[in-house]
Amino acid sequence: MSGRIEKAADGRDRVNIRLVVEYDGSGFLGFQKQSRGRTVQGELERAVCALFREPVRVLGAGRTDAGVHARGQVVNFHAPGAVPVSSIRSALNQMLPSDVVVRDAAPVGPEFHARYSAEERVYEYTILNRGLPSALESRFVWHVPDRLDIQAMCGAAEALAGEHDFSAFGTAEEGRSPVRRVSRLKVSARKPYVKIECAANAFLRHMARGLAGAIVDVGRGAAAIETLRRALNGERPALTIAPPGGLCLVAVNYGGESLNAGVCTERV
Amino acid sequence: MSGRIEKAADGRDRVNIRLVVEYDGSGFLGFQKQSRGRTVQGELERAVCALFREPVRVLGAGRTDAGVHARGQVVNFHAPGAVPVSSIRSALNQMLPSDVVVRDAAPVGPEFHARYSAEERVYEYTILNRGLPSALESRFVWHVPDRLDIQAMCGAAEALAGEHDFSAFGTAEEGRSPVRRVSRLKVSARKPYVKIECAANAFLRHMARGLAGAIVDVGRGAAAIETLRRALNGERPALTIAPPGGLCLVAVNYGGESLNAGVCTERV
Repeated sequence: MSGRIEKAADGRDRVNIRLVVEYDGSGFLGFQKQSRGRTVQGELERAVCALFREPVRVLGAGRTDAGVHARGQVVNFHAPGAVPVSSIRSALNQMLPSDVVVRDAAPVGPEFHARYSAEERVYEYTILNRGLPSALESRFVWHVPDRLDIQAMCGAAEALAGEHDFSAFGTAEEGRSPVRRVSRLKVSARKPYVKIECAANAFLRHMARGLAGAIVDVGRGAAAIETLRRALNGERPALTIAPPGGLCLVAVNYGGESLNAGVCTERV
Repeated sequence: MSGRIEKAADGRDRVNIRLVVEYDGSGFLGFQKQSRGRTVQGELERAVCALFREPVRVLGAGRTDAGVHARGQVVNFHAPGAVPVSSIRSALNQMLPSDVVVRDAAPVGPEFHARYSAEERVYEYTILNRGLPSALESRFVWHVPDRLDIQAMCGAAEALAGEHDFSAFGTAEEGRSPVRRVSRLKVSARKPYVKIECAANAFLRHMARGLAGAIVDVGRGAAAIETLRRALNGERPALTIAPPGGLCLVAVNYGGESLNAGVCTERV
């Protein structure tokens, strides 16, 4: 635990705490706090502030859109004063609403930043591919009734992987580079589901949904793989943006360490 | 199809249509229509009325509480005029909100009544039994962090099965018998889940949740099996009523035919 205590500007000790967070995005305007409306960051800050009885800023690795879920979002905050780290998780879970759960809490070095230290974000997109929709899964899957050509989708994924200008699939922040490195883009089918796993150093806004939508466009014959290649080279074809409910941030990787918190499979 | 056409009082032909319905109960005040607020029956009647362009009453087999889900709710309605039965399911699903899905639609004899013809209702209750709650499953499970004695729960289920006065576990309608026949009450564990399957000819109000709550009370050592036996014999001990989100109406049986619509497992 040595080296984990920081001296803040106000002279008090602070401990940098890293949380792994799961949430059902259905009831949120997204991760990022807004001037009004329910957000994941807002709920986390409210709980952390209640625990430490003073304002604390909570920073997240991925700014998920409204309706997008997470099993492995990573956030950090600088806890004022000495904190019993072992009880942070359960204390926060008692204060959080039922659609946000802290899966893990751990002290990290003062230099750790959930967003800037992250080397890779991993998203999973789930498609329900059959004629009949599902009421119970409607918040968590994209219902695509059309027949999908899985081989063609794998080819589309292969064409999109790698380092490219992804402007045709998402929105870059004003004045920032639209180039991202997609390190893994994998399509797998297990009836009636089709999953698209996507890992990248970072994502443009809507990019994970843009990639999933374009791959499905190829799968149902609405776009050619060649069209996607041209989109990576400056063209702007009409491509589908997949709806948010099917998307889940499953892990964030830091220096080779994956924080997807496998805690859900063990008895905790 | 002969013998399926009825002559209604107004002289027009009517066809009795049976639907198997799935819904996520989170966004509803329950199945039964109320003077205000969102109900499953209300959404179904709205869709059926829109399809046939006149008021049609939709009757359900089980009046599930607010927050209770269904994979196999059964309803019927008398469709005015000739109807292309083959297209009813998809037509209704296009008009229904995403949290209600018609899994099956079929013409039945004029005497079929979803509620009064039903011989058995089957519910499943799901408990998430570990320290950590789940955000993504929070609408569909009851999170019980205490250690549960599964053997004791099986004993409790055995004690409660059979024909009894279930007044201690649910509320009978004014002037109606509180006696019900529980034909199956089964506890099974598959970490981190514990499931309670319950089949009965009919259920008092809250009874499925009352049985699940009492069985969990025994599992965590808060009640003895003997206490449940005394509750069946007129005593009124304090017993837990399990929350609605863990409960799902999975099937309704009619004359030996189970309508749980296994359609979800095939490509439809």
